[in-house]
Amino acid sequence: MADQDVRTTMGPGSSGIPSLRWDEPPEGPVLVLLDQTRLPAEEVELVCTDVPGLVLAIQRLAVRGAPLLGIAGAYGVALAAARGYDVDEAAALLAGARPTAVNLGYGVRIAAGAYRAALAKGADGAAAAALAAAKELHRADAEGSARMARHGLALLDELLPGGSHRILTHCNTGRLVSGGEGTAFAVALAAHRAGRLRRLWVDETRPLLQGARLTAYEAAGHGMAYSLLSDNAAGSLFAAGEVDAVLIGADRIAADGSVANKVGSYPLAVLAKYHHVPFVVVAPVTTVDLETPDGASIEVEQRPGHEVTELTAPQVPGGGWGSVSGLPVAPLGTQAYNPAFDVTPPELVTAIVTEEGVLSPVTGGGLRELCARSRRVTIS
Amino acid sequence: MADQDVRTTMGPGSSGIPSLRWDEPPEGPVLVLLDQTRLPAEEVELVCTDVPGLVLAIQRLAVRGAPLLGIAGAYGVALAAARGYDVDEAAALLAGARPTAVNLGYGVRIAAGAYRAALAKGADGAAAAALAAAKELHRADAEGSARMARHGLALLDELLPGGSHRILTHCNTGRLVSGGEGTAFAVALAAHRAGRLRRLWVDETRPLLQGARLTAYEAAGHGMAYSLLSDNAAGSLFAAGEVDAVLIGADRIAADGSVANKVGSYPLAVLAKYHHVPFVVVAPVTTVDLETPDGASIEVEQRPGHEVTELTAPQVPGGGWGSVSGLPVAPLGTQAYNPAFDVTPPELVTAIVTEEGVLSPVTGGGLRELCARSRRVTIS
Repeated sequence: MADQDVRTTMGPGSSGIPSLRWDEPPEGPVLVLLDQTRLPAEEVELVCTDVPGLVLAIQRLAVRGAPLLGIAGAYGVALAAARGYDVDEAAALLAGARPTAVNLGYGVRIAAGAYRAALAKGADGAAAAALAAAKELHRADAEGSARMARHGLALLDELLPGGSHRILTHCNTGRLVSGGEGTAFAVALAAHRAGRLRRLWVDETRPLLQGARLTAYEAAGHGMAYSLLSDNAAGSLFAAGEVDAVLIGADRIAADGSVANKVGSYPLAVLAKYHHVPFVVVAPVTTVDLETPDGASIEVEQRPGHEVTELTAPQVPGGGWGSVSGLPVAPLGTQAYNPAFDVTPPELVTAIVTEEGVLSPVTGGGLRELCARSRRVTIS
Repeated sequence: MADQDVRTTMGPGSSGIPSLRWDEPPEGPVLVLLDQTRLPAEEVELVCTDVPGLVLAIQRLAVRGAPLLGIAGAYGVALAAARGYDVDEAAALLAGARPTAVNLGYGVRIAAGAYRAALAKGADGAAAAALAAAKELHRADAEGSARMARHGLALLDELLPGGSHRILTHCNTGRLVSGGEGTAFAVALAAHRAGRLRRLWVDETRPLLQGARLTAYEAAGHGMAYSLLSDNAAGSLFAAGEVDAVLIGADRIAADGSVANKVGSYPLAVLAKYHHVPFVVVAPVTTVDLETPDGASIEVEQRPGHEVTELTAPQVPGGGWGSVSGLPVAPLGTQAYNPAFDVTPPELVTAIVTEEGVLSPVTGGGLRELCARSRRVTIS
């Protein structure tokens, strides 16, 4: 089950509450999530004491973002193990909670694999092994995030020698999706810290407004120069020459380099191509799924129509809105087409930035090599 | 001043309340508007007794849409004349109420010209002349709408010989913007009536959701097969081959064929080009402004940032939200980039459908010829 524990309603991004943390109070171990559906109105922690509670939190997007889902999945397995639940059942539930983000299944497999390996050596220590694997994934993700930021900033400086970058981003890819500072957002943040970010253009990212709610919250917290726009206004920025590069994250990268990411990414890729603007994907190597051969093979999650037919705002204290039920906007009975992701083919992607380095041009061969290099590093 | 008069809260599009009507109750003549900010939740008529009230209604989008703004502007001049206000001052106020829609200024000039011409012949009958000009513009717009629908359907049948059209549209272009059944929407409606509309894809059209609120309301009222989508999801439809043509309206067409329309139109034009899908603009000849030489010369209205940083839903009875103040979504202090329109260059426009016929390819010479033909028809 998931309990809620209001911690603070301080200003944007000021509290430094982590997106996710493992805790061991006297009542037993728990996974504590910053409830992202309530940002930026309030910073509320959600305490998960079992896997069904965590699955629900994943499905209603209280915790989201490809890398963080991987970490949450690993801790979920550790939680089941620590509390004596059926670990195989928990792993299956978690891996199936959302279909598109490949990292979720990866994190679950890592922790479940560590659990089973320890179990094979004797029952003692299996739960501890799962937790150690989750913590290691968490640590490695934070470190990978820092490396992506370095590689990404070097790429920006190479692509845009002027040194004053105007970057357009979509959805949310900062510390709220990561064990560290994120993926695409971490690159923009590195540019900001280096004094080379002129403007971060933040797509609001309908229907769930992760850009308006979460990226703006993170950008404000870091004191970055940012402007929010309706996704529709991105075209005007390109036409006016106001975008130097697009930086996005990824939920799954197929073996041919096709990138599944938040719906609205593909139109940006087409606009970027038309305007000769670099379109850069920033994601850890775990996002690459060599078993999905191409873009057409990526399963795209279809979300409920009410996310489009109703307006939903982050919960505010005393407000009458939940994060699930909203205020109808379209006529009753209106059907909606609501894919959560879209797929950008490799020919529209200028580069993929990973913790292992930058791949450009994006090819299947290059991706396989990156993944092999990553495995060597992990093994060494 | 503008009074409000709740008339009905019947189902979507069921009431047949006109978007705009002239009325002459015992207290004096008035212009009555269907308040579009409150649709589809309720159908409320707004009674304008003077020009400042009408200007406010125009600015807060209670009445909107290029052709209807022209009609409203003409009736506004007639209202000032009938009530004995300063007509020149009223005309200047009205013409400047919104900068991008060329039809507004056109309607104002037509009625003010008729007023002044009558005045030159003697004071009697000048107000009646302004009203007659407004009514004639209203009638001509309804007739033009029917002719655009015929020309547009013929074009669709020529471009898409399969006869089962899946049409993507943006913003709202139906009877709510017109003296008749509209522009782009009227073409889709003609296809529906001819049994050749397979699906109308309705962009929700952030930030003000004219698609979700108004186009869905009109499509539901006509029993059309429609689906609503977040603007971001249009790319996925193109990629999946689910869009046969894009139909949009226009707020101003420059002499070179550049089309200013609701923000989000230009990204659709780029997507359509990339996917070899026809991109068709439907607008009366009065939308063409030969005095604006090109796209760069079109003044694009910048709207307040709160339209993006806050969520605003149509007013519902008993609800706490107005159509002006909304619920904050982004962190306080967030700046927004919020252009109301964007500009699509002629090379991305497959055809412009007017009441005088279809222009394809779109060239400055062709536009001048269309405008000249329109003038001949008007004079004859």
